[in-house]
Amino acid sequence: MEKSPKFAVIGGGSWATAIVKMLCENVDEVSWYMRSVYALEHIKKQEHNPNYLSSVEFDVNQLKLSNDINKVIEEADYLIFAVPSAFLKRELEKVTASFDGKIIFSAIKGIVPETSLIVGEHFHVTYDIPYENIGVITGPCHAEEVALERLSYLTIACADEEKAKMLAMYLSSDYINCKTSDDIFGTEYAAMLKNIYAIAAGIAHGLGYGDNFQSVLMSNAIREMKKFIKKVHKMKRNINDSAYLGDLLVTGYSIFSRNRMFGNMIGKGYTVKSAQMEMSMVAEGYYATESAYKINREKGAKTPIINAVYAILYEGKDPKKVFQKLSDKLD
Amino acid sequence: MEKSPKFAVIGGGSWATAIVKMLCENVDEVSWYMRSVYALEHIKKQEHNPNYLSSVEFDVNQLKLSNDINKVIEEADYLIFAVPSAFLKRELEKVTASFDGKIIFSAIKGIVPETSLIVGEHFHVTYDIPYENIGVITGPCHAEEVALERLSYLTIACADEEKAKMLAMYLSSDYINCKTSDDIFGTEYAAMLKNIYAIAAGIAHGLGYGDNFQSVLMSNAIREMKKFIKKVHKMKRNINDSAYLGDLLVTGYSIFSRNRMFGNMIGKGYTVKSAQMEMSMVAEGYYATESAYKINREKGAKTPIINAVYAILYEGKDPKKVFQKLSDKLD
Repeated sequence: MEKSPKFAVIGGGSWATAIVKMLCENVDEVSWYMRSVYALEHIKKQEHNPNYLSSVEFDVNQLKLSNDINKVIEEADYLIFAVPSAFLKRELEKVTASFDGKIIFSAIKGIVPETSLIVGEHFHVTYDIPYENIGVITGPCHAEEVALERLSYLTIACADEEKAKMLAMYLSSDYINCKTSDDIFGTEYAAMLKNIYAIAAGIAHGLGYGDNFQSVLMSNAIREMKKFIKKVHKMKRNINDSAYLGDLLVTGYSIFSRNRMFGNMIGKGYTVKSAQMEMSMVAEGYYATESAYKINREKGAKTPIINAVYAILYEGKDPKKVFQKLSDKLD
Repeated sequence: MEKSPKFAVIGGGSWATAIVKMLCENVDEVSWYMRSVYALEHIKKQEHNPNYLSSVEFDVNQLKLSNDINKVIEEADYLIFAVPSAFLKRELEKVTASFDGKIIFSAIKGIVPETSLIVGEHFHVTYDIPYENIGVITGPCHAEEVALERLSYLTIACADEEKAKMLAMYLSSDYINCKTSDDIFGTEYAAMLKNIYAIAAGIAHGLGYGDNFQSVLMSNAIREMKKFIKKVHKMKRNINDSAYLGDLLVTGYSIFSRNRMFGNMIGKGYTVKSAQMEMSMVAEGYYATESAYKINREKGAKTPIINAVYAILYEGKDPKKVFQKLSDKLD
């Protein structure tokens, strides 16, 4: 392989850890930034992330670990952001280094709550980064299965497909198949919307609906997702490709999905606040619901499922009644 | 409600039992034919089917139970067939009554093995029944959840949509939502193909593939199903409607699906014969695989998943190797 570009991964969670692992299969050195000095020291000494995917052993000679986000940004060609969307703005506030000429990929499945923008748009608007230097890494992919080296498929999207191909080459391995796309808007909105539908699936389960209903809900969800994304960014895409339908399914049918779990608690009668406290975290789909609802107020796609989840989470409506009404709109 | 047409259900299995239950919500009398005299006597005395969905209690005054298929056919306007496709021909050989003027709905999810025809075509070709008198009842719907009165959705398809609407009216209730369609070919092929994809899902699971792969497999399956059905019967349809995608999902993601279970055993190393003996029955998808493969040899749709399942079940190919090759074709 030719001399590789310099890659930096920003984030210390499970998805960041999985991406570092994928890159380490192909390049000599990966820069890896995370906030926690404790975790960095642990990785240096114990060769694994103490908090996430701790079964993954790294060759620390391949890792350039740092707590200095500016240094990491300065030295890299490709920056891969994999922090929770709720923390992105806070991380970016530390940045004094320039993004000029950097290629930025978002592996964040969500929306920036403060601006209601998808991550790519946020970079474009806030830092004036041209869209041809912005991309998205999307699933369907649970990080846990990357740790186990179970065959997984990624879609790498960038308006400049050459850059998507470049990154795809460096992420591919025996257990990772990559496909490229030029649909950065569609893939990122899909990644965000699927979390709302996973909450809906959880609510339905919590309310006692069964597998028959669940399959109808998912069938309606993919049609709704298609309408929403078409309104937001019209282009030719097959909504049944893995990046859209596959990503919806891997989340909606996963009992490990935090969004589904959150919805399940809501369906069982927890208030939003108590469900969030019980989970000691906020599910991405919670923010996504508000953002999607607001975006769609302007766009006007028919989105009964998003509206139902919004009514339950933000308007305090009774889940049972809301889902009774929703079920009449599904087919 | 006006005086209802006379309905007869042919079959004693779980799906037949569920359909009788649905009809009993709306009509005074349902004719019910099954082979087993023992089961008929049991229902008369104990008010439930001894072998399937035995939690469902019937008001026997509503049931006209009979072991005489000809009498049942003669007296009914709507005939609903719900026997396994492998036994349909054998049941029909007993029939001397005329099908003239009868409206025939198939609730059979499969293909008639002897003729490689979907059930509607089989009736049309063998008995010269016009297509406007032939229809399909399709899910996504596990009979077990109908027994529990969990909200479920059916699609009732007939070239003459008025007849579909009529049956839909008599099947609908608090827990059953019906949609109508004029796509008898597409819905019936979907119901048959989904069993092949459920076998594929089972094989993948048996071989150790994870949820990431499973979601990619299902995403590819629905695209493959669309291509296949389009070649067989071209018309405008949304493949993401519940009757197609929903039916695929409820089967492909169900750990109770017999087809998925059969595939799982094959993936774990059982031979086809030993898996069938272990299950003491033949999964519908086994026949469907051969039929779909042969039909598609003429039609020429790209169907790598069907071909892979065929190679494993009928050509004795090694599942591991076949799925390794298949995984390169998926995206």
